[in-house]
Amino acid sequence: MAARAAGNLLVGQSGGTTAVINASLVGVAEEAIDSTAVGAVIGMRHGIEGLLREELIDLGRQPVGTFARLRRTPSAALGTCRHKLSADDLDRALAIIRRYAVRYFLYIGGNDSADTAHRLHLRAREIGYDLRVLSIPKTIDNDLPHTDHCPGYGSIARFLALATRDAGRDTEAFPRQYPVKIIEVMGRNAGWVAAACALAQDDDRDAPQLIFLPERAPASMEAVLAEIAAAQRNHGSCVAIVPETLHDAQGRHLSGGDRHFVDAFGHAYHPGLGPLLAERVKHELGLPARYDKPGTMARMAMMAASSTDLVEAEEAGREAVRRAVAGESDRMIALVRVGDGDAPYRIAYDVVPLERIANTERLLPDEFIGDDGRSVTAAFRRYALPLLGEPLPGYGRLAELPFVLAND
Amino acid sequence: MAARAAGNLLVGQSGGTTAVINASLVGVAEEAIDSTAVGAVIGMRHGIEGLLREELIDLGRQPVGTFARLRRTPSAALGTCRHKLSADDLDRALAIIRRYAVRYFLYIGGNDSADTAHRLHLRAREIGYDLRVLSIPKTIDNDLPHTDHCPGYGSIARFLALATRDAGRDTEAFPRQYPVKIIEVMGRNAGWVAAACALAQDDDRDAPQLIFLPERAPASMEAVLAEIAAAQRNHGSCVAIVPETLHDAQGRHLSGGDRHFVDAFGHAYHPGLGPLLAERVKHELGLPARYDKPGTMARMAMMAASSTDLVEAEEAGREAVRRAVAGESDRMIALVRVGDGDAPYRIAYDVVPLERIANTERLLPDEFIGDDGRSVTAAFRRYALPLLGEPLPGYGRLAELPFVLAND
Repeated sequence: MAARAAGNLLVGQSGGTTAVINASLVGVAEEAIDSTAVGAVIGMRHGIEGLLREELIDLGRQPVGTFARLRRTPSAALGTCRHKLSADDLDRALAIIRRYAVRYFLYIGGNDSADTAHRLHLRAREIGYDLRVLSIPKTIDNDLPHTDHCPGYGSIARFLALATRDAGRDTEAFPRQYPVKIIEVMGRNAGWVAAACALAQDDDRDAPQLIFLPERAPASMEAVLAEIAAAQRNHGSCVAIVPETLHDAQGRHLSGGDRHFVDAFGHAYHPGLGPLLAERVKHELGLPARYDKPGTMARMAMMAASSTDLVEAEEAGREAVRRAVAGESDRMIALVRVGDGDAPYRIAYDVVPLERIANTERLLPDEFIGDDGRSVTAAFRRYALPLLGEPLPGYGRLAELPFVLAND
Repeated sequence: MAARAAGNLLVGQSGGTTAVINASLVGVAEEAIDSTAVGAVIGMRHGIEGLLREELIDLGRQPVGTFARLRRTPSAALGTCRHKLSADDLDRALAIIRRYAVRYFLYIGGNDSADTAHRLHLRAREIGYDLRVLSIPKTIDNDLPHTDHCPGYGSIARFLALATRDAGRDTEAFPRQYPVKIIEVMGRNAGWVAAACALAQDDDRDAPQLIFLPERAPASMEAVLAEIAAAQRNHGSCVAIVPETLHDAQGRHLSGGDRHFVDAFGHAYHPGLGPLLAERVKHELGLPARYDKPGTMARMAMMAASSTDLVEAEEAGREAVRRAVAGESDRMIALVRVGDGDAPYRIAYDVVPLERIANTERLLPDEFIGDDGRSVTAAFRRYALPLLGEPLPGYGRLAELPFVLAND
């Protein structure tokens, strides 16, 4: 099929995968296919790497039903990458873009992807090539600035909220055998993902008892152990959330430093913070401990995907096409919460300059962190719960009604 | 409230928790409350331990709505235990049972719980006390003999099937960054749980590429590494399922032996097979590797609970009450698959003598294991898929339609 006279559109996915990054791709593809201003709709395999290798997929000729299925398929259907563009890469990418008559470059990703998009925009302008570059936010880390939240976060938040409450129920059912459970989570340098673990708490009997946030770095590993011991004493059992990248107050990674492991052959091993901390709880507190590391399962668990997240991710993709066709460039789609206070949750779509996104990160603000530094506030719950989609199912407990013999 | 003239009923939960063990409890409680043959309905806190401490809960006076919520609440609402009864314990338990006018003893648990129940039955008969002892099967491990399957298995199977497919999609989206993913799962000495990780495969592009089954022990850790390297070469990426208890052909635990870790202070650490194997893949194969350890989250993830499992768990509890009231004792409820071949899945409830359950285990039969020893057969899929409840949602992929310039 010959390209129509309209400009062609390139779309790619970049960075870590999520439950909803394909929903954004579907939004872009369907909107672009429907637009008379767009000619061919072309997908890059593995983001900018696929462009450089000219591994390109025709999204305009996909079999019927493909997009409907992809909308509910996690991970990145085009493949993803982490590729820092060199100056040579930039020129080569633009040469290919020009050869393929591309006018619209849409990139679904996080901070690094925004940087790539921004540099493509600048270089295109320098050489006088009309290219509209739009970025569609995507990261479970929720650490992009100038957007209420990032598509992908609501779904990992839902998964971890539910899974943490479950893990807590498990721990409290058998506090003498495993009084301590460590849950290691992702989140890069920000505490958004860790904080989400609190969102299914029905009351203060529910896990987690401790959330270690990068924004409130513990003084040392010894301090972490002391806090776990105290929580276990007070509560009978303790579920502690630890980000995989947690550092101490001096900026040293808690799973690294001079206490790494060596095997019988002298190789240094880095099992990660979850298993390390569980072992230290056993050895140094004398408390049996387990760890769960949901890992990559958590960040793209379609079984717990947020319906709100899926809709917003797709709509962000559609909005990017509309903005690009209208002539905008060098922008990321931003989600804006409309109304405030007690207004029902509603999102509008705006744009923010890419240079304000690239290579920056948004940490958890103080008002979302409890005074103890190990919990979240009601303000965080109000912020985050709407992102999780359908209301979380409530759990039950038996009422404490001791059975007493009638003749006692 | 005075106990009615009918015999009282004791119910407890024992062993590891599951997504549906509370459904069994609700089945017992509701059926018992409705039965004119049953007086008070009493729950033991933490199984037999709660009986010995007389920590007993009145299940007949729970607030309205409690059971409806508990039916969809994972873990053990009464608390659970692992307690091997001593001879003294037995006599003490029976003295309490007699004092509380208990005629029905219902125990929801696995092999060890069946042993406890069996010994209680025998001792009651020895001393001439009329006690009807019924056990309700419960284990994610699915390793109880003489039952088609165990309540709890269908739900962990559903979770792991979905999560493994997701983890595979993640790995294949970015095979150059993390070509190998290790998923560590539970399952004791049997491969049922590991095998379930294959149940959401849409086709052979989907994970897992390798399932290490206890029934097909690898020769050594080196053999495991060689298999992972080969799978990654052939497939481009590799998701490998490893049971936490995996042993080599000589019966040595693969995560232990002489290659344990020591920290800078000389303490031996046992981070578990997942992190160990991921580190060895990195060091010895030179392949970046990650591991996921869903751990206790997997065994009681209500977000992926099987509707079939929930119904069967509850019905097994109800059946146990009916059998006890009818005079049966020393039996476990067994699930029997009705019809064969292409008949629609349907389960009937029978009983099996406890002595045939206690301290035995059922391994994955040969006909469920692929010839390569690292996959499952179509027969296993036919067996297991109905246990997972609603059909698993299908995922999509882009069709491989390269975009070619019209003038190329």
